[in-house]
Amino acid sequence: MSKRVLIVGGVAGGMSAAARARRLSESAEIIVFERGPDVSYANCGLPYFLGGEIADRKKLLVQTPERLKAVFNIEVRTRSEVTAIHRGRREIDVRDLVSGHATTERYDALILSTGAAPIVPRVPGAARAGHFALRTLEDMDRIDAWVRDRGAKTAVVVGGGFIGLEVAEQFHARGLRVAVVERNPQVLKPFDPEMAAHLHLELRGRGVALHLNNGLKEFDDPRADESASASVVVLADGTRLPADVVVTGLGVRPESTLAVAAGLDLGRTGGIKVDEHLRTSDPNIYAVGDAIEVTHAVTGAPALIPLGGPANRQGRTAADNIFGTASACPGALGTAIVRVFGLTAAVTGANEAQLRAAGIAFEAVHLHPNSHAGYYPGARALALKILFAPDSGKLLGAQAVGPDGVDKRVDVLATALRAGLTVDDVADLELCYAPPFGSAKDPVNLAGMVAQNVRAGRVRTIQWDEVAALDRSHVLVLDVRDAPERAGGAIPDSVHIPLGELRARLSELPRDREIVAHCASGQRSYTACRVLMQHGFRCRNLAGSFKTWKAARDGLTPQ
Amino acid sequence: MSKRVLIVGGVAGGMSAAARARRLSESAEIIVFERGPDVSYANCGLPYFLGGEIADRKKLLVQTPERLKAVFNIEVRTRSEVTAIHRGRREIDVRDLVSGHATTERYDALILSTGAAPIVPRVPGAARAGHFALRTLEDMDRIDAWVRDRGAKTAVVVGGGFIGLEVAEQFHARGLRVAVVERNPQVLKPFDPEMAAHLHLELRGRGVALHLNNGLKEFDDPRADESASASVVVLADGTRLPADVVVTGLGVRPESTLAVAAGLDLGRTGGIKVDEHLRTSDPNIYAVGDAIEVTHAVTGAPALIPLGGPANRQGRTAADNIFGTASACPGALGTAIVRVFGLTAAVTGANEAQLRAAGIAFEAVHLHPNSHAGYYPGARALALKILFAPDSGKLLGAQAVGPDGVDKRVDVLATALRAGLTVDDVADLELCYAPPFGSAKDPVNLAGMVAQNVRAGRVRTIQWDEVAALDRSHVLVLDVRDAPERAGGAIPDSVHIPLGELRARLSELPRDREIVAHCASGQRSYTACRVLMQHGFRCRNLAGSFKTWKAARDGLTPQ
Repeated sequence: MSKRVLIVGGVAGGMSAAARARRLSESAEIIVFERGPDVSYANCGLPYFLGGEIADRKKLLVQTPERLKAVFNIEVRTRSEVTAIHRGRREIDVRDLVSGHATTERYDALILSTGAAPIVPRVPGAARAGHFALRTLEDMDRIDAWVRDRGAKTAVVVGGGFIGLEVAEQFHARGLRVAVVERNPQVLKPFDPEMAAHLHLELRGRGVALHLNNGLKEFDDPRADESASASVVVLADGTRLPADVVVTGLGVRPESTLAVAAGLDLGRTGGIKVDEHLRTSDPNIYAVGDAIEVTHAVTGAPALIPLGGPANRQGRTAADNIFGTASACPGALGTAIVRVFGLTAAVTGANEAQLRAAGIAFEAVHLHPNSHAGYYPGARALALKILFAPDSGKLLGAQAVGPDGVDKRVDVLATALRAGLTVDDVADLELCYAPPFGSAKDPVNLAGMVAQNVRAGRVRTIQWDEVAALDRSHVLVLDVRDAPERAGGAIPDSVHIPLGELRARLSELPRDREIVAHCASGQRSYTACRVLMQHGFRCRNLAGSFKTWKAARDGLTPQ
Repeated sequence: MSKRVLIVGGVAGGMSAAARARRLSESAEIIVFERGPDVSYANCGLPYFLGGEIADRKKLLVQTPERLKAVFNIEVRTRSEVTAIHRGRREIDVRDLVSGHATTERYDALILSTGAAPIVPRVPGAARAGHFALRTLEDMDRIDAWVRDRGAKTAVVVGGGFIGLEVAEQFHARGLRVAVVERNPQVLKPFDPEMAAHLHLELRGRGVALHLNNGLKEFDDPRADESASASVVVLADGTRLPADVVVTGLGVRPESTLAVAAGLDLGRTGGIKVDEHLRTSDPNIYAVGDAIEVTHAVTGAPALIPLGGPANRQGRTAADNIFGTASACPGALGTAIVRVFGLTAAVTGANEAQLRAAGIAFEAVHLHPNSHAGYYPGARALALKILFAPDSGKLLGAQAVGPDGVDKRVDVLATALRAGLTVDDVADLELCYAPPFGSAKDPVNLAGMVAQNVRAGRVRTIQWDEVAALDRSHVLVLDVRDAPERAGGAIPDSVHIPLGELRARLSELPRDREIVAHCASGQRSYTACRVLMQHGFRCRNLAGSFKTWKAARDGLTPQ
């Protein structure tokens, strides 16, 4: 019994499904229909070609139809659009976009890997020449040609998401003057604001103009004094940003047109609804990748996670289920990473906003440990945040930003999260330690230890965003850093007693006011809190201390 | 009720215990006795000072007694040797090594962090000048002075363990001509031989003379033609290695003298026996760090794991238990890492030898994935091996060697191992993916997927060390790589059919012989096996394929 497996979409999830299907069945007939001219290309690499980091375009073409035929006996039909699914008779209509010829193909199993489409801004002037999204190789080629042919010198990126920031970085590397426009008060919504703040500072520090809290109003014709530009991006507050090239990165929406027309169920996010086996509401149709709705592993909420990693693994899982190996996808963590100039930012699990929306109680800890042993050259501090459940101690999410070692720590925490580990487990993880790679207490261990202390009530914490609202008549802010550190900046109206002098100077502190202690990162002020608490003072430790507070103040303040 | 906590040993576990004890109790009296002149120094950094990577010796002194007094109110007595424990009356005898003065100190709780002592070779000539071990800051200073004052040009490192290889690398960086002597057929016993083989090649490639399978026989006086050297290392086979400086790194043995004299139980490894709360056989005495015996989390066997990471966490745990927070240490995974010139090698869990000794059934898979997306610049292949239980699918161990991304993958696998994850879980981990950091299917995912295929019987594997013994009259070795790859070397008497031509050339293959397929890394030959199996051929896939086979052949062959 030879199965006929048709796959709609030949990138990421679709091609992964096709290759796996062939490995599972030599006899199956496997045909991939792809609307575009290319299959199996590296869409995560597109920004890096624009900036020249990937110099050879051919490198982005991971597979060709010829090679797929030779190695996997997979038939790939590019420039072929699937226009309808006839579920009753298990057929699809296909139109050859070159010849215009229409055919009908029968399937035993159908896999929809239709992807997602860029959200196009619905504002006046959006269709102007020089406006692009970056989703396909063709998009990339068009942008590249436009920038080159026009000798573009200025770029506006509308949307501070992952792709927007990658494009901003790469345009900058190409020598363009770049502005990033973001409607929200921060870039990268999956991150909590004080973590995104580090990226704001990095972008500005590199000379990228960052317009936050200021959405796109419209695109306008260049005025006389803006005449060299292709378009003018007008912001909500009226700011005019002339640009030689505009790239919109406003996110994507699932490409569900085909599924909707066929009467398949959608989830409430608009993604195609699938069960854990990636089966749609029709048992003969599977869906994978950016087109589907997944369940968030931490919040249980339906979610769209349009990322290459999950898509590739889902393709494999769908093929397994079609060929009889029951295989289930776990809930999604949304693990994601982006490099923004000298910083890397990575996230896994839920952030504060998601936890609040889901009504899940959490505690947050911040720390700023070194990427490896401080005494070994090249150690750099990274900002690390974990969120955990106060009752069970279970990890709920993690975020990190820094110049080095970020991917490793978030990968470890994503693994811990998947496994349902608690902060106690995390404190005791046995990770690689030699001076060039980590510390005897790895940043991940430290995060677990700090969380243990909070959970056990050994210290109470206060978060960076609570400082401004403190009633200083009832609260004293105590800086326990050493004098040279304080010279580089301080929280206003704080009292300074270096940790090493604290026990001797307890009499200088009020017993009728709560004390909020801080140091640079929260480690020394934790010790200070332990001293103070045991001497009868009421005390809280500022999570992430001066470093978190300062990044948030400097990075979140509108400029 | 103020506790008196005495701690024997002021490095790693001891200092970690002291600091934690103070945070838990302001009122406790905490005294640390350290035989040497320094406390809380970075002993993992010592090799890097010898090579000049760490230029400032002060950086190695993480804490000073003065600072520990000021910040933690901990009394540190250096040059103080604890000579006896009187358990009945809870007292210890202490001798001041400077004044010779002896005192007796009472304790409520005693923590032994006595560490481990380097194993000294018991061969003729061992006490010669110019022979050193590297364990303390004083050792480091002595070696540094000797090398400098003598203008040393040649070094012999006896023992190819972690410290031995670090010292070899750093001596080489300092311009010395270096030989490494190892009694076993491989360096780094925690690794399986085919993984250590990569390091052999790296060491030799950098010009380090590697003498394997050739232990130390004795040290001899230089002969006339060896007169410039300080000593001559004579190997079992009579080879003479003149050296200006000799460092022995033959491992360590737990410093249990004090514990033994006090009648505390030792484990069968010779380490101090403790329960999971790190309590010795005396309920008022705890022990931590290199001195104790731990239980291996995978094999359940008693083990010695003299590493800085566990020691530091154990110190914290011991303090927790003394101050009423029941805290338990999980079994040990033995996670370890070392950089050897351009390669990093890391390991976690059990290796094949340990699993065999414990009678635990396992399967091994090898792969050679890129450190990040192959289309993004700088991707480098790493050798990755995982061991798993065929029945449950549980991960048992992992090893990796490569120029980049090794620490991250082993940290993730160490976390998975700690959590009891299976290869199915590992295949589906949601790790960070952007082109500079990983791949849509991360090396860790791929390892899980390969293991799934083995476990599900989708492919049978053959290991590198089984190839030589194959009876070629019954087995055909099939190379499915492309022609240019084969030109760079091949397994003798293998047949070559590139994967892309396999289906068309099946008739060339015998049906009465088993086929062992290989490619470069095992990925394409897995596809080949799937094709062959479904066409009725008996087939096995060579795990890790040509890369593993070649590294083992070249790296394990005596030179």
